[in-house]
Amino acid sequence: MATVAKTHRVVVVGGGFGGLHATQCLKHVPVTVTLIDRRNFHLFQPLLYQVATGWLSPANIAATLRAILKRHKNTHVLLAEAVGIDVDNRRVLLDSGSLTYDTLIVATGSRHHYFGNHHWEPFAPGLKTVEDATEIRRRIFSAFEAAEREIDTEQPSALLTFVIVGGGPTGVELAGALGEIANDTLKHDFRNIDPSKARILLIEATDRILPSYPPELAYQAEIALNKLGVEVLSQALVTDINPRAVTVKRPHGLETIPCRTVIWAAGVQASFLGKLLAQATGAKLDRSGRVLVEPDLSLPGHPEIFVIGDLANYVHQTGTPLPGIAPVAIQQGQYVAKVIQSRVAGAPPPSFRYRDRGNMAIIGRASAVADLGKLQFSGFLAWLAWLFVHLMHLVEFENKVLVLIQWGWYYFRRNRAARLITSSDSAKRNDCPQS
Amino acid sequence: MATVAKTHRVVVVGGGFGGLHATQCLKHVPVTVTLIDRRNFHLFQPLLYQVATGWLSPANIAATLRAILKRHKNTHVLLAEAVGIDVDNRRVLLDSGSLTYDTLIVATGSRHHYFGNHHWEPFAPGLKTVEDATEIRRRIFSAFEAAEREIDTEQPSALLTFVIVGGGPTGVELAGALGEIANDTLKHDFRNIDPSKARILLIEATDRILPSYPPELAYQAEIALNKLGVEVLSQALVTDINPRAVTVKRPHGLETIPCRTVIWAAGVQASFLGKLLAQATGAKLDRSGRVLVEPDLSLPGHPEIFVIGDLANYVHQTGTPLPGIAPVAIQQGQYVAKVIQSRVAGAPPPSFRYRDRGNMAIIGRASAVADLGKLQFSGFLAWLAWLFVHLMHLVEFENKVLVLIQWGWYYFRRNRAARLITSSDSAKRNDCPQS
Repeated sequence: MATVAKTHRVVVVGGGFGGLHATQCLKHVPVTVTLIDRRNFHLFQPLLYQVATGWLSPANIAATLRAILKRHKNTHVLLAEAVGIDVDNRRVLLDSGSLTYDTLIVATGSRHHYFGNHHWEPFAPGLKTVEDATEIRRRIFSAFEAAEREIDTEQPSALLTFVIVGGGPTGVELAGALGEIANDTLKHDFRNIDPSKARILLIEATDRILPSYPPELAYQAEIALNKLGVEVLSQALVTDINPRAVTVKRPHGLETIPCRTVIWAAGVQASFLGKLLAQATGAKLDRSGRVLVEPDLSLPGHPEIFVIGDLANYVHQTGTPLPGIAPVAIQQGQYVAKVIQSRVAGAPPPSFRYRDRGNMAIIGRASAVADLGKLQFSGFLAWLAWLFVHLMHLVEFENKVLVLIQWGWYYFRRNRAARLITSSDSAKRNDCPQS
Repeated sequence: MATVAKTHRVVVVGGGFGGLHATQCLKHVPVTVTLIDRRNFHLFQPLLYQVATGWLSPANIAATLRAILKRHKNTHVLLAEAVGIDVDNRRVLLDSGSLTYDTLIVATGSRHHYFGNHHWEPFAPGLKTVEDATEIRRRIFSAFEAAEREIDTEQPSALLTFVIVGGGPTGVELAGALGEIANDTLKHDFRNIDPSKARILLIEATDRILPSYPPELAYQAEIALNKLGVEVLSQALVTDINPRAVTVKRPHGLETIPCRTVIWAAGVQASFLGKLLAQATGAKLDRSGRVLVEPDLSLPGHPEIFVIGDLANYVHQTGTPLPGIAPVAIQQGQYVAKVIQSRVAGAPPPSFRYRDRGNMAIIGRASAVADLGKLQFSGFLAWLAWLFVHLMHLVEFENKVLVLIQWGWYYFRRNRAARLITSSDSAKRNDCPQS
């Protein structure tokens, strides 16, 4: 009696950089792939701060997973939420139903994290999703509108104080963009207030911004930020955030900063699926909830489960864990696909080696810092390099064109056309419309 | 003792087509202008259905009022909500504070209306705001996703039934776009369902769609819609909408259509400010709540108050009220600005005469109908004319370029890149992110 050879089923949870690249690399491997995500699109997160600051539209940095994968005949996209993993029976539990796997790739990433102060979130939103970005955009531009209305009161100084918590690349990019909004974009827009009087504070707990960059570049970045009117407060640990103020602990004591707009760019925690996996398999987690993985990115004792991207703590050839950035997730996704391909073909698996191509952070118009290992530079050239690299990595050619046009427009006209104040609240107010 | 001549204060409520054009035309008139809107942007509503169907991004059809008016030295933009008008003391009451006027222009438009069935709104949203558009977009694309997940049940036929209530231009444009989404855009996207099996119904209470167009053009439009897989149900009056079905009364009796996605494009009602003005001044309202205005668009007995656009019922030189469309609002805004200019200069006011340049409705890719009075045509030429006219009227050059590229992209690649499923609910679900 002939047996029917069942196709090897790969389930990928999460359509971010890691999950998407793993899926794409499995296109010609004789397996069936199911990519699960609860959003219908892949988001190019490195440009999300440009949505939050009214430069680009959400759709410009997103591409629907189905559109990206429509020609992948062996791939199935499922819009669903993974709520658990039944390791023993090799099943992913979904919000409705479940899915059986032979190999599982978990790439559910991370979320911003308030270090035990979750109650700060309503006053200091973080930037991970499209909705986060439109909410931050709403807060930034609403603050200027409120200040324009309330010129007679004593409010304006607090209304026009913006605090960004966290001096990593996202915090630096947000602070730089805010500096340009206040000093450039909104220059002629108001009659009662002078937007350039806005106070923009970038707060960092350690002794300098961009801790992962060489000190010289961090210094260049701080100078560039100062030119844009951004004050950098290092050695400042946030101890309280409320709707009226942020309190920080500095070397000389506590300091309270009255402000209405706070953005959180200080910490991330890995997806809860990491914790579930650890409980089920005995795998270890690091302080941020990332899963400590084997050299081939599988779980200890579970070669059929891979954890990649922001959710994985992978100790680099240099002895330190790889950072939670897109290039790491992409290379890990590609690598895991190759491991699966080797296994299916019965060939020896390759070994993973991260190729660090460097880091770049944009500060403003024609200003950035780039750390390409031996080569470190800042200013206009770094800015051009930043634009080029990010444009090349954007998914879908249409988005590349739309983003390039909007960047060009901004460069020459300094206009941020996407600064709409929208929200479900605004929608509710529209029962009696005015426009 | 010298008296200081106070500048004449014009207050404009509403930054839609009427209010914005009135404000712009007052640029060089020696008055001060305050434009009040509760949104920070002017919205190009004729293209809103393209946002709702994943073709354009909201920012592509919006322009911030401050950016448009930044060079208008006599103009002040105020982000606020007008909640009442104190006619005797010439004050507009705002959600916070109030504003005194010498001349008032009320241009607060209209909102979709359920003819006493307001409880239908959650099941059948209308399309007036950016938030409406992203909500309808979410429902359309979520329906296909749900059908893909639920292939095993008997649900799919209802999940893939889309009902559009109202056969006017907006209903026709939405139905055509939905037909293209089902038959073209999503063609290769799914594995379990065939999107072209979706049932798209356009329901119209009168005996034909596009009642305001010549019968021959309406007939052409119906043929074009049929080609896109849209069924037109005329003489069908909606009697009930619930989360599971729409019930319509047809000549032969009641008919119940199981469906999950319903879009309301059937009726509008004027802003509540019309009612307040009528109560305060004794002005008359028509059935839709529009204010009956004098030949110079002022309120009877109140030459200092003008009502324009969708909020006004102005009886045309032909004896019928002007329709609630952008060209009417624009011309009325421009006219009222001229009346104010004449009054300030002590010159005799001009008289208003509406120049009807015709109507156009788009049905799909390379298909539209145009009624330019003596000249009536349909098909590709009408489509080109539609594109050209709408592109020319879009505010801000950057938006023209971005929209043109996305239209071109769609024409050649049939891709709708902006079909993101976003909502504040999705944001909430993101506490444990997957992408």
